Amino acid sequence: MSADKDSLEKFYGKEVILADRELVESGSDEILKDADKEDIAFLVVGDPFGATTHTDLIIRARELGIKVEAIHNASVMNAVGACGLQLYKFGQTISMVFFTETWKPDSWYDKIMENRKIGLHTLILLDIKVKEQSIENLARGRKIYEPPRYMNISTACKQLIEIEKKRKERCYTVDTPCVTISRLGSPSQKFKAGTLRELAEYDSGEPLHSLVMLGRQVHDLELEYLYDYVDDKDKFRLDVEADQEHFRPPPWVPPEEEDSDY
Amino acid sequence: MSADKDSLEKFYGKEVILADRELVESGSDEILKDADKEDIAFLVVGDPFGATTHTDLIIRARELGIKVEAIHNASVMNAVGACGLQLYKFGQTISMVFFTETWKPDSWYDKIMENRKIGLHTLILLDIKVKEQSIENLARGRKIYEPPRYMNISTACKQLIEIEKKRKERCYTVDTPCVTISRLGSPSQKFKAGTLRELAEYDSGEPLHSLVMLGRQVHDLELEYLYDYVDDKDKFRLDVEADQEHFRPPPWVPPEEEDSDY
Repeated sequence: MSADKDSLEKFYGKEVILADRELVESGSDEILKDADKEDIAFLVVGDPFGATTHTDLIIRARELGIKVEAIHNASVMNAVGACGLQLYKFGQTISMVFFTETWKPDSWYDKIMENRKIGLHTLILLDIKVKEQSIENLARGRKIYEPPRYMNISTACKQLIEIEKKRKERCYTVDTPCVTISRLGSPSQKFKAGTLRELAEYDSGEPLHSLVMLGRQVHDLELEYLYDYVDDKDKFRLDVEADQEHFRPPPWVPPEEEDSDY
Repeated sequence: MSADKDSLEKFYGKEVILADRELVESGSDEILKDADKEDIAFLVVGDPFGATTHTDLIIRARELGIKVEAIHNASVMNAVGACGLQLYKFGQTISMVFFTETWKPDSWYDKIMENRKIGLHTLILLDIKVKEQSIENLARGRKIYEPPRYMNISTACKQLIEIEKKRKERCYTVDTPCVTISRLGSPSQKFKAGTLRELAEYDSGEPLHSLVMLGRQVHDLELEYLYDYVDDKDKFRLDVEADQEHFRPPPWVPPEEEDSDY
């Protein structure tokens, strides 16, 4: 992310072709051309298996009898551990897209609910709009692209609050604690912990950003780590404790005696 | 994992001190000694945030006012995507330890159940016993260590089957499909897909190994990818389809009309 085309070409001593979304999603023939005869490298940000389109490219290569070797890399899917929450207590990851006046997809709400019901944290990946056309330019077939847009923390939190207000299933509240992760892996990397309501007013600065909504299973060690990112330690602890009452399972009751041959 | 102490020292041009479990878990003072005055690097396999003891070390450093910078790395937690299952459909990760005659911990069973109920895949990390003392040597205070032991796929599958037989909650069956990951990231990396029963007889070769139990949410693209690792494609597809009936949610029924002011 921090290297441009020129520095990559200097580093590798080879020409680097910029693969935009269009090329990756529909130009697999072009990418795989002659790859059975010479070495072709496909460079990605993060881990190569983080995106379905990459898996698709490997399947396509296999079908053509092209040998593929994947070099793994750090990815937000594991580097998110830098915020202090334990990786093995994350549930399924969700993606949040920019809402429009008429399009506010919220299928992620059910996934957060599933994670929260069993006490797990949810990693929320925020929308990136690069090389998008306006509806007008798209309709007129003009290849004019909008400036890139990256969702910030405030927008993400406001969208989360908007959908809870609409769905009213108490998946979370405005007081549910979250952790923000900005510019992960870069020198200006920054974390911030607070409630949804607080983070809806947070200025997260330059992209990229991700957000984690806490689950009930917050260990003391995790909490200790997060204290470094909060404005008011005592308030945050109380927020976490209050949120833990959400979906707390009922107390354990010993099962009734069963028939021995059951 | 593939570099020894000598080659690391040659690469870094510095002395490398082998940090065993004992040093990492109870020797933080030794590790952090003078780290406020000079650069101390703590090298790990995988991502630095993959283990609680590492997070603990950072908290300890912070308390001492020592600045910490983490360099992220690929980890099994994201490299597992190489098996073809999508990372965002994994639930919480579990660890399985070697059973003994008298000690067969199975709290992971409930976690797999939670993941499976909502259709998610479960990454199962297998036990590694390095520098362990026998009970006799431990009792006599003799620092004699047993040879290292790494759990293989067959043992893990047999333990999974044993606990399902004991608990009988039908979290999974012997016909539940799984994917094995052996020597991830090394040139001899290998994947194998099959049912628990089949994999209980699988010879997974040299360590390290991990196992993924599939959830209900198997996408066609994931299945297509896994076909490369199975003996019988049609049988595997039927196994996956049969397993998907497990925990399948009831069909959707439209809600009854609500009062308009509800």
